[in-house]
Amino acid sequence: MKSDIDRLMIERGFDAIVVSGNSLHNYPLFYMTNGAPLTSGLVIKKRGGSPVLICNPMEREEALKSGLEVHTWSDFDLTALIKETGSYFEANLKLYERLFEHFGISGTVSFYGKSDPGEAFVRLARLNAMLPDIEITGEVEGSLFDEAYTTKDADELRQIKSVAERTNKAMADVIEFIKGHDVKDETLVKADGSPLTVGDVKRYLRTRLIDYDLEEPEATIFAIGRDGGFPHSRGEADDPLMLGKSIVFDLFPRQAGGGYFHDMTRTYCLGYAPDGVKKAYDEVMGVFYAVMEAFSPGEESSGYQTVACDMFEQAGHPTARSTPGTTDGYVHSLGHGIGLELHSDPRFSFIKGQPLEPGMVITVEPGLYYPDRGFGIRVEDTVYMDASGEIHSLTPMPKDLVIAVG
Amino acid sequence: MKSDIDRLMIERGFDAIVVSGNSLHNYPLFYMTNGAPLTSGLVIKKRGGSPVLICNPMEREEALKSGLEVHTWSDFDLTALIKETGSYFEANLKLYERLFEHFGISGTVSFYGKSDPGEAFVRLARLNAMLPDIEITGEVEGSLFDEAYTTKDADELRQIKSVAERTNKAMADVIEFIKGHDVKDETLVKADGSPLTVGDVKRYLRTRLIDYDLEEPEATIFAIGRDGGFPHSRGEADDPLMLGKSIVFDLFPRQAGGGYFHDMTRTYCLGYAPDGVKKAYDEVMGVFYAVMEAFSPGEESSGYQTVACDMFEQAGHPTARSTPGTTDGYVHSLGHGIGLELHSDPRFSFIKGQPLEPGMVITVEPGLYYPDRGFGIRVEDTVYMDASGEIHSLTPMPKDLVIAVG
Repeated sequence: MKSDIDRLMIERGFDAIVVSGNSLHNYPLFYMTNGAPLTSGLVIKKRGGSPVLICNPMEREEALKSGLEVHTWSDFDLTALIKETGSYFEANLKLYERLFEHFGISGTVSFYGKSDPGEAFVRLARLNAMLPDIEITGEVEGSLFDEAYTTKDADELRQIKSVAERTNKAMADVIEFIKGHDVKDETLVKADGSPLTVGDVKRYLRTRLIDYDLEEPEATIFAIGRDGGFPHSRGEADDPLMLGKSIVFDLFPRQAGGGYFHDMTRTYCLGYAPDGVKKAYDEVMGVFYAVMEAFSPGEESSGYQTVACDMFEQAGHPTARSTPGTTDGYVHSLGHGIGLELHSDPRFSFIKGQPLEPGMVITVEPGLYYPDRGFGIRVEDTVYMDASGEIHSLTPMPKDLVIAVG
Repeated sequence: MKSDIDRLMIERGFDAIVVSGNSLHNYPLFYMTNGAPLTSGLVIKKRGGSPVLICNPMEREEALKSGLEVHTWSDFDLTALIKETGSYFEANLKLYERLFEHFGISGTVSFYGKSDPGEAFVRLARLNAMLPDIEITGEVEGSLFDEAYTTKDADELRQIKSVAERTNKAMADVIEFIKGHDVKDETLVKADGSPLTVGDVKRYLRTRLIDYDLEEPEATIFAIGRDGGFPHSRGEADDPLMLGKSIVFDLFPRQAGGGYFHDMTRTYCLGYAPDGVKKAYDEVMGVFYAVMEAFSPGEESSGYQTVACDMFEQAGHPTARSTPGTTDGYVHSLGHGIGLELHSDPRFSFIKGQPLEPGMVITVEPGLYYPDRGFGIRVEDTVYMDASGEIHSLTPMPKDLVIAVG
């Protein structure tokens, strides 16, 4: 959590961190500015010191919502630097020089945020060469933000629970909406007799998300039959909702305007489930409950991916472990951390696991995919581990495969 | 436009370009993949060659929508590399090595996309040191994508016009919604007698955007009175709509799921406009029409910012030119290019202008800001320059300051 940042800086030997970019699609900046909506901002934090925010003077008012000490580019004469150098890039380098001098920054400084990678490479190399007292660096894996994000403080948990509750309601509303349609020739139909489509369902969903003050920055998966057999296929808008076909409904909205995500998946069959789908569904649920039962603080996350692969392989399915690159069977990892980022640490892959800890919020999402047999199955809850190491699901939505319609 | 990329690569001496990241909030990747929705992808293009797309095997189906030649990480044994190196980072470096060898990439390679700046700095420095035949670089200003984006081809223009038409309809619907309310004690009220608020208006707007298949990834500005005096203040949800106060309504949605933006602003007063607001509004409109009249191909964009500053200063207002850092008067630049990015080249600032060209789509948005006098004014159309150099507004929404209510 955020209060860990100084410790994480010490562990890494960083004297200061710099976080920059737009705050809207840039989690470290959103995190450091407590969600203040900025087109462009810069947070500088010395080890042991409070973060300061430097922003466009036009965004002062928004910046003050961060609760941080706020300065603007104008306080450092950026316009004069641009005139003097005739270049935004050169002026930006000189701005950093002034900021580092003003705030007494020296030593190892690690950079975070969002930018163009080529631009960052050239810019930070120039800055590094320009500033003899400063060693510029960055983190390539398991950054201090990745680590800080893994556990949530009380205020974050409050926001996460609120988003979870609203996301569950939105999915329940969509199921009621679907059930409100008639069936004709094995297909759900609207009042005018035309088929109810994936596009119709997604449009209805969007109206519900608005009412619950949620947004879907990464879209939504509502994928029927073969499409559901590809974990990231979002579904085709023109597809009609037909009886007996698997529907993978993976909903992962966040607080409107930016904030915490919820991530939940249900697989449904309308009317009835074919035997092959039913059997695979039961196997997925078997893994789901086995893993939920086994979660324990201090245990390596990768161990649970092992449990899932063991179970699926014993049931005769290929897995990403037994058959690297497979697109049949169990093809992804068991879950992921979630927060301001939809996918964050801890990971549940074999290479990059980490011990589970109280305060973590993670997803559990076993699945089976057989696109050539025309189906995919995934069931996913978001869960958190409380101070005593107990696991609590934030996704109470029922897990029945078949939805009665008609 | 996209067909310029080879020429732009030659001008810059690039033998290949690499574009990476998530395609959703990453314009170069979205542009190169023709909008294929990818969580993570990599486009490599040799000078004179067709771009190839490398993606997660789980996203093959989505990747094929790009129309590009598609490969997956698995084709290059990424999983084995991860196992071998025990590190995603090291495996990723080796993956690049394999890709460059497989596709015959050597010489100067420029990187684009979205990533963490510190990570990019460390990663590209390592890759540069690892690959003796390759010189890695990036662009810090006026990149080839910035330049390619400035002009639009026929297909882009078709999409841009469609988004423009729907955005104008959404704003018109919101105005009708506002007019449908009663007035009590100089305040608009809902059926239950409680005040109509900025939050109510924004919620209604969101339902209209859904119906028009638009989204607002950068939010919307609906800022009343003093809030409108800060160009980027979005407005306070609890603020009631009151008569005689200026409302800056700046709407900049894009195609739902990613695509082209429209950007339009109107300033309104409900019922009546105070004299000071009326006078400033007329001055802003004077600049607006003078600039629209003057637009001509081959003219430097910065020249129009000069025209705007001249006119505002003659009328007695401070400007960003006469009073750097001012928050009163005309505090920003006249407009910007627009496309997949909300703000792109050409810029209209004094430092970074460029000649106007047929095919450009730009905004024109003079404004005056007096937060301490409780108002701000901005009027903005998005316009395009046709093949003959004629300017056409894509924002037909009327420009009347006062809306009759009650």
